[in-house]
Amino acid sequence: MRCVACKKEAKVKFIYAFCESCFIRHYEKRVRKLINKFKLIQRGDKILVAVSGGKDSLSCAEILASLRSIYKFKLAVLHIDVGVSTCTDFRTEEVIRSFCKERDIDFYIIRFKDFLGVDESVDIKELFKKTRRPICSTCGMLKRYLLNKFAREAGFNKIATGHCADDITKFFFKNWFSQNFDWIAKFKPFTPSSHPKIISRIRPLFECLEMENLAYVKFKNITIAGYSQCSYFLKKDKWDRLLKFIDEKRPDFKLNIVRGLEYIKIEVDKDRPLRECEICGEPTDRQVCSVCTFKERLSLK
Amino acid sequence: MRCVACKKEAKVKFIYAFCESCFIRHYEKRVRKLINKFKLIQRGDKILVAVSGGKDSLSCAEILASLRSIYKFKLAVLHIDVGVSTCTDFRTEEVIRSFCKERDIDFYIIRFKDFLGVDESVDIKELFKKTRRPICSTCGMLKRYLLNKFAREAGFNKIATGHCADDITKFFFKNWFSQNFDWIAKFKPFTPSSHPKIISRIRPLFECLEMENLAYVKFKNITIAGYSQCSYFLKKDKWDRLLKFIDEKRPDFKLNIVRGLEYIKIEVDKDRPLRECEICGEPTDRQVCSVCTFKERLSLK
Repeated sequence: MRCVACKKEAKVKFIYAFCESCFIRHYEKRVRKLINKFKLIQRGDKILVAVSGGKDSLSCAEILASLRSIYKFKLAVLHIDVGVSTCTDFRTEEVIRSFCKERDIDFYIIRFKDFLGVDESVDIKELFKKTRRPICSTCGMLKRYLLNKFAREAGFNKIATGHCADDITKFFFKNWFSQNFDWIAKFKPFTPSSHPKIISRIRPLFECLEMENLAYVKFKNITIAGYSQCSYFLKKDKWDRLLKFIDEKRPDFKLNIVRGLEYIKIEVDKDRPLRECEICGEPTDRQVCSVCTFKERLSLK
Repeated sequence: MRCVACKKEAKVKFIYAFCESCFIRHYEKRVRKLINKFKLIQRGDKILVAVSGGKDSLSCAEILASLRSIYKFKLAVLHIDVGVSTCTDFRTEEVIRSFCKERDIDFYIIRFKDFLGVDESVDIKELFKKTRRPICSTCGMLKRYLLNKFAREAGFNKIATGHCADDITKFFFKNWFSQNFDWIAKFKPFTPSSHPKIISRIRPLFECLEMENLAYVKFKNITIAGYSQCSYFLKKDKWDRLLKFIDEKRPDFKLNIVRGLEYIKIEVDKDRPLRECEICGEPTDRQVCSVCTFKERLSLK
């Protein structure tokens, strides 16, 4: 198998075969092209990248770090420690802290346990099980809440996440099947703010495959905290299995799905207007936001 | 395998297992539900159903015929003889004519060869090959043109086609991949007229699978002209193969795709306004419509 660019021996093949250095160049070029096409970064931006410690978020942080000198923006990393033993590695924090130190990136950490005001010994998974909400959904809700609140309070104007074509394709089908078109309408490389308290989102890896991110961190010698921070749950997902299977038949399937999403314009039903939660002041479409409702249910302050 | 409805021995299983009579009831009920949900039929309608002689169009004609007494509308069948030996069976016309006679449905036939003014001995496939346009695309263009023109001139206010969930899902992915969202926006059980000379379309089998249509004609003892009128070409289609694979893993995949399509609202770029072709007077967005351009290219009148 030969590299399509330089004809040397290829090391990876997703859609095209590449050697190590041509792969890195091709991957970074694709991300830069997306950033330019959708104007994801402006001079003077203050971007907070959410890093779990997995291949996707570290690829995102790495590529953004390398672009600081070109686009002239400020970059920082936020890690949210979910405190679920099956989802996070004991080395995670150290891995991300070293990554940031080597690249001169400000590093911030927030812990679910601190936010929820529970003791270090509490098992977060058992705590979450006490509500009827699925664990992954609770985790996602808290992460989105804390990420937005922290970014705003710390003065960032954009949040970057490592969502890749695999995630987006799965979200797409799950939401198509449950007819949540309003959600699909938001799956774009750039989601502008919809409320003064909501920070815009950018997704630089929108057109990158999960396996490409894995190859990227490997070739760049980036230590990651684990194969996937959520692998414990994702293993059970029937969508992952189906999409893996489709991938074998059509390796360009996910890329074509996400490229369609970039351009489709979906009319959304008028959202309920956002207001501020009566308890915490964060934006919500209800009187009390879902995080405060959740905390109340568990009798947490 | 037991019928989920009556517990007798099941004869078919697509998503659920059914015996023969429960399948027919279930299938017809689903089509009626769709017709009611999207108000496809109004009292006094004059509906022309396009029948190729295959399982899909004959299922559509059969179910519409059975609903005439309930919804009080007029029904007729139009068969377009494409004159391509690999696509049409020599018995096709006779099969459809008998079907109509038994059900007291007016039967009309149009032949490509008559419309193009070519001799009976001309090989249509060889003729079509003379242009750069793919044969299936030419065939589709001519069929849409003739169907609309005939329906309007003969006083019908709606055209029904046997497009089923398999067709729609394939169209969906093909058009998503080529980012033809305007086309996807039109894939609905009901497509209203967009010009005084364009007849509205209804697709009563929008939520039916191809294999369900096959079971339906079999259980209802309806003679069809062949397995599929287009099977010669469709065999080559990579989308059919991929969707067949997906089907084996998730038998409800196509149904969920089409049910999403029923409700999604896609903002379409402003179409170029339709006007009338300078040669034939049929609606087009150009000076000369694609059919007249095609005829000119082949030096046909």
